Amino acid sequence: MGPVASGDVALLVQKFGGTSVADPDRIREVADHVARCRRRGDDVVLVVSAMGKETDELLRLAALVSSTRPGREMDMLVTAGERKATALTGMALHDIGVPAVSLTGSQAGFITDTNHTNAKILEVRADRVRAAVDQGMVPVVGGSQGVSTHRDVTFLGRGGSDTTAVALAHALGADACELYTDVSGVFTTDPRLVAEARRIDNVSFDEMLEMTATGCPKPAMRSVDFARSYNVPLHIRSAFTWEPGTWVTEEDPAMEQAVIRAITHDVSESKVTVSGVPDRPGISAKLFRALADQEINVDVIVQNASAEGVTDISFTVPTEQLDDAVGALENGVMASLGADGVTTDDGIGRVSVVGAGMKSNPGVAAVMFETLAAHEINIEMISTSAIRISCIVKGDQVEDAVQALHSAYGLGG
Amino acid sequence: MGPVASGDVALLVQKFGGTSVADPDRIREVADHVARCRRRGDDVVLVVSAMGKETDELLRLAALVSSTRPGREMDMLVTAGERKATALTGMALHDIGVPAVSLTGSQAGFITDTNHTNAKILEVRADRVRAAVDQGMVPVVGGSQGVSTHRDVTFLGRGGSDTTAVALAHALGADACELYTDVSGVFTTDPRLVAEARRIDNVSFDEMLEMTATGCPKPAMRSVDFARSYNVPLHIRSAFTWEPGTWVTEEDPAMEQAVIRAITHDVSESKVTVSGVPDRPGISAKLFRALADQEINVDVIVQNASAEGVTDISFTVPTEQLDDAVGALENGVMASLGADGVTTDDGIGRVSVVGAGMKSNPGVAAVMFETLAAHEINIEMISTSAIRISCIVKGDQVEDAVQALHSAYGLGG
Repeated sequence: MGPVASGDVALLVQKFGGTSVADPDRIREVADHVARCRRRGDDVVLVVSAMGKETDELLRLAALVSSTRPGREMDMLVTAGERKATALTGMALHDIGVPAVSLTGSQAGFITDTNHTNAKILEVRADRVRAAVDQGMVPVVGGSQGVSTHRDVTFLGRGGSDTTAVALAHALGADACELYTDVSGVFTTDPRLVAEARRIDNVSFDEMLEMTATGCPKPAMRSVDFARSYNVPLHIRSAFTWEPGTWVTEEDPAMEQAVIRAITHDVSESKVTVSGVPDRPGISAKLFRALADQEINVDVIVQNASAEGVTDISFTVPTEQLDDAVGALENGVMASLGADGVTTDDGIGRVSVVGAGMKSNPGVAAVMFETLAAHEINIEMISTSAIRISCIVKGDQVEDAVQALHSAYGLGG
Repeated sequence: MGPVASGDVALLVQKFGGTSVADPDRIREVADHVARCRRRGDDVVLVVSAMGKETDELLRLAALVSSTRPGREMDMLVTAGERKATALTGMALHDIGVPAVSLTGSQAGFITDTNHTNAKILEVRADRVRAAVDQGMVPVVGGSQGVSTHRDVTFLGRGGSDTTAVALAHALGADACELYTDVSGVFTTDPRLVAEARRIDNVSFDEMLEMTATGCPKPAMRSVDFARSYNVPLHIRSAFTWEPGTWVTEEDPAMEQAVIRAITHDVSESKVTVSGVPDRPGISAKLFRALADQEINVDVIVQNASAEGVTDISFTVPTEQLDDAVGALENGVMASLGADGVTTDDGIGRVSVVGAGMKSNPGVAAVMFETLAAHEINIEMISTSAIRISCIVKGDQVEDAVQALHSAYGLGG
């Protein structure tokens, strides 16, 4: 089904997440899988995350030692986790006769900026990884890590191993990047909420990006963005059942498009409303500059000009940044805006429908609004893109909304 | 008492062992100590080992994943331990206002050979460490690690952190290398066996080397050898009481020498006897070459030519290498030697008296033999150096022997 036809020999970058390498048994299962792939003739490059909950454990330890936790030291600490996993995976491969070589992010050529705890990849100098493959070895690369232009160890952030894998697949010109995880692929919606949720065989980069941006937990959005930019085919699949999963590729214009691909949801955001804002040019710019300066991720933004020359501006922020957002507004900017006040609501949720086919199907939004209305779910905010419609609703109505929409668009098959 | 007079400002390399950084509380205590040293005006460079039993834990994990455990991957794995400790110590220092920067062995400039799990330092390019000190920071260097000439991560072996500290002190031209541990210094004998054991204030490199070679567990022999070669003053002291400990320095000819400095013991070796060996030139060479080729550490060697043209050769090996030693002898070399057979005894122990003063005091050996005889302890083998006499006795008589000798030489003060 995917871009690599069965029977062809390929260069595969395979990334294994924390649950996939959580203990010695799992590490040996991963090694067995790699051996099978190589017997089939494929070349394999591995990227591994830290084992199980190890990253959390390291963060817990850091909190016991330090209240300041400087980024540079945190990165040195946290990257010890992937280092352990690469070495153990390397020796497990060696044990079953597969020559392997573990590599830190630095050794694998990941050059990053100096933005510790959340570094960005500037360049991948993959010579050493390529040389290992050419010598018939399996390089086992530590995920989410690199070395900065200041020669310091850097961490790409939580979920950064997906990005490592995609960047490496691009640098090597790999045929595909396989992201192995504890689920068997990407689903039409959260299977915990909707029993009829189906695994999706193929999804476009654009759709996948909208899905991860609106609550689909895996793969990490940043890696999808990267894969889209460089056209690296992704294969999201299970490290437990080993069955084929979901391919994420460029949209194929010849392929018939599903109108709606998936329903996503997200209850991690809160709503902020700034009321009584004078309806003048430059006011929004001032407001959101103040938030951006505090590195607050603003998402859905709604503004309605009223007849009285004042307006309310509402937007969502991650709930964990809610206090910072209110602080950033109240410390100065509210006064200079001449606004009345700020109200917040952390009891909201977002429900989204995603599908590239909605571009040529004008009735999609109407079906969504009608379905929510029929279930007496009030819509507080609406936000749209070319291939997505999101509604902000009350948090305790999110499950209802997801189930109703999944059924309304016939996603259960 | 030591080479750095009180009141002087110094550059100190301070090494903290596993028990000294075993948990968050201990790491914060170490940070407090460093802050005190800096308030006194000293510059400090830290070397830290892995926390507590972490290295053992990593080795246990490796054994669960792999039976082959290739050295390169083991080194990648084990060095994760010191990495964690450096980062946590770095952030603990930062927390109390001491600017610090953690450095891996590679970042600190430790270039080693490619002999994984037991690499040797070829060169220390300490520019980065020195630059950090010049900028008023405390570099926190991972102990026992480096990068090989093949650009692989290497481990210097258990106890290698002492060597790291001494090598770094030499490279930086530090005033002293302080080895902090869980005991308050070096003792006249094992205080667990002899209640009257006293801490030694000063000991020469030569004496310390003989002591570590014959059972004194700390510091690591290799680090003492290194310190002697480059004349780096060592200070063995407690990370728990912080009191001054034992200085290890060059022998001061002006200083009155104690005849005997310490009694050491070692029950980790076994005796091997090859009997009925033809008394011909080249026979010993053949025998010990066979053992050296298997990397077996042969120690005390005794050979007595007999009248009949045959001889018995006895030697000791670490008990953990006993099977390998017998194997190396029986697979070929015994036949080509024309020897009768091999017998072994793993129930032996070694008792040694060490002291630079014995060079000019001829009666030392006689006192030792008389003391052992008076306690009905039979001597099986004898080995001597200019400043040491060792006797191999029955393992279950070692405690008796140590107590009797400590008293006979008046070491209790």
